[in-house]
Amino acid sequence: MKVSIVESILSANDEIALQNKEILDQYGICTINIMAAPGSGKTSLILRTIDALRHRLRIAVIEGDVASTVDADHVATKEVPVAQINTGGQCHLEAQMVRRALGELPLADLDLLLIENVGNLICPVEFKLGEDLNVMLTSVPEGDDKPYKYPSIFVAVDAVVINKIDLLPYVRFDVDAFRKLVLGMNPDVKFFEVSCETGQGIDDWAEWVLHQRERKG
Amino acid sequence: MKVSIVESILSANDEIALQNKEILDQYGICTINIMAAPGSGKTSLILRTIDALRHRLRIAVIEGDVASTVDADHVATKEVPVAQINTGGQCHLEAQMVRRALGELPLADLDLLLIENVGNLICPVEFKLGEDLNVMLTSVPEGDDKPYKYPSIFVAVDAVVINKIDLLPYVRFDVDAFRKLVLGMNPDVKFFEVSCETGQGIDDWAEWVLHQRERKG
Repeated sequence: MKVSIVESILSANDEIALQNKEILDQYGICTINIMAAPGSGKTSLILRTIDALRHRLRIAVIEGDVASTVDADHVATKEVPVAQINTGGQCHLEAQMVRRALGELPLADLDLLLIENVGNLICPVEFKLGEDLNVMLTSVPEGDDKPYKYPSIFVAVDAVVINKIDLLPYVRFDVDAFRKLVLGMNPDVKFFEVSCETGQGIDDWAEWVLHQRERKG
Repeated sequence: MKVSIVESILSANDEIALQNKEILDQYGICTINIMAAPGSGKTSLILRTIDALRHRLRIAVIEGDVASTVDADHVATKEVPVAQINTGGQCHLEAQMVRRALGELPLADLDLLLIENVGNLICPVEFKLGEDLNVMLTSVPEGDDKPYKYPSIFVAVDAVVINKIDLLPYVRFDVDAFRKLVLGMNPDVKFFEVSCETGQGIDDWAEWVLHQRERKG
């Protein structure tokens, strides 16, 4: 008797992520999953991106947090649609949470969806959400040794945004050494050096985001 | 027929943590579990603590990281015993990992054990290791809104060390508002304001650590 084996090729999360992607593709929405440690400036980057692109793209935001709506409240002041996911203790977003949040957003009226993941350099990497692109943010006060200690995220992302470059005079962070280290792990990664405080470098980042959306059609 | 229910009062992790604590108590070792986001300065605080207390206490360190030995290498330059735990992707330390690390340390010759947990504000809180005290580090460039977004850790700790106060002139961080917010969640918490870069505030912190060890016997 032959034994049939049906392999679960995709995990439950990845299956839902694929469905999310199909929904988002159908509406032509370019979706970026933004990951970082707590306090690297994910929300500030989202606010800057909205300011830079709001007249060229219709933008919405999904805010992922363990608790509270403080980030979503900030985003809401920009008058773009925003859905808050509170994970209730969980350390990362999952595709099912995003699915529910999509139900709260006017998908037919959107070009760009920015997802702010939970502040964590480890767990979010494992969970696809349905995004087109993964971006991580690192800030110079965190130090330039993070790729050694959290390699998985640096390998997984399409772009690394180095934030808080206005603080470079006051901390030890060797931008060239950092870039070289990350490129050794992920040769195709794009870098952006920005200050969400002063606005420096935001134009280049916004131009790249716009280009990603245009590539999508 | 009466059904007997045997409840698992402690999780497997907590049982091992309790055993770790018994071992450490037996040797009179005061153990501090240090938690923080990536890049808040856990290793720098440990290095400063060693410098401040090495002539008064016999100190060892357990370094927890997803990958690499860069932090343990730094600590080793101080010529104190150090055991590296690489979690291999896992986002927190567990009691069993600490148990193994204890086997690498000269317990009979120690007064103080500093455990650097994996850089993460969410997951480490759930896992007791056998420590006497839990301390969290937050750094001013991360912003003063973290207690809203990561409440569990602020509730769980005995002390909050506010690091990188040398950067206060360059970032927005309202120390009084932050302290008030945390005290509302955890009225018995101790605060320390330090700069591991300049050494400011380290004496007060080291004095407190010394006092914790003395209280233990």
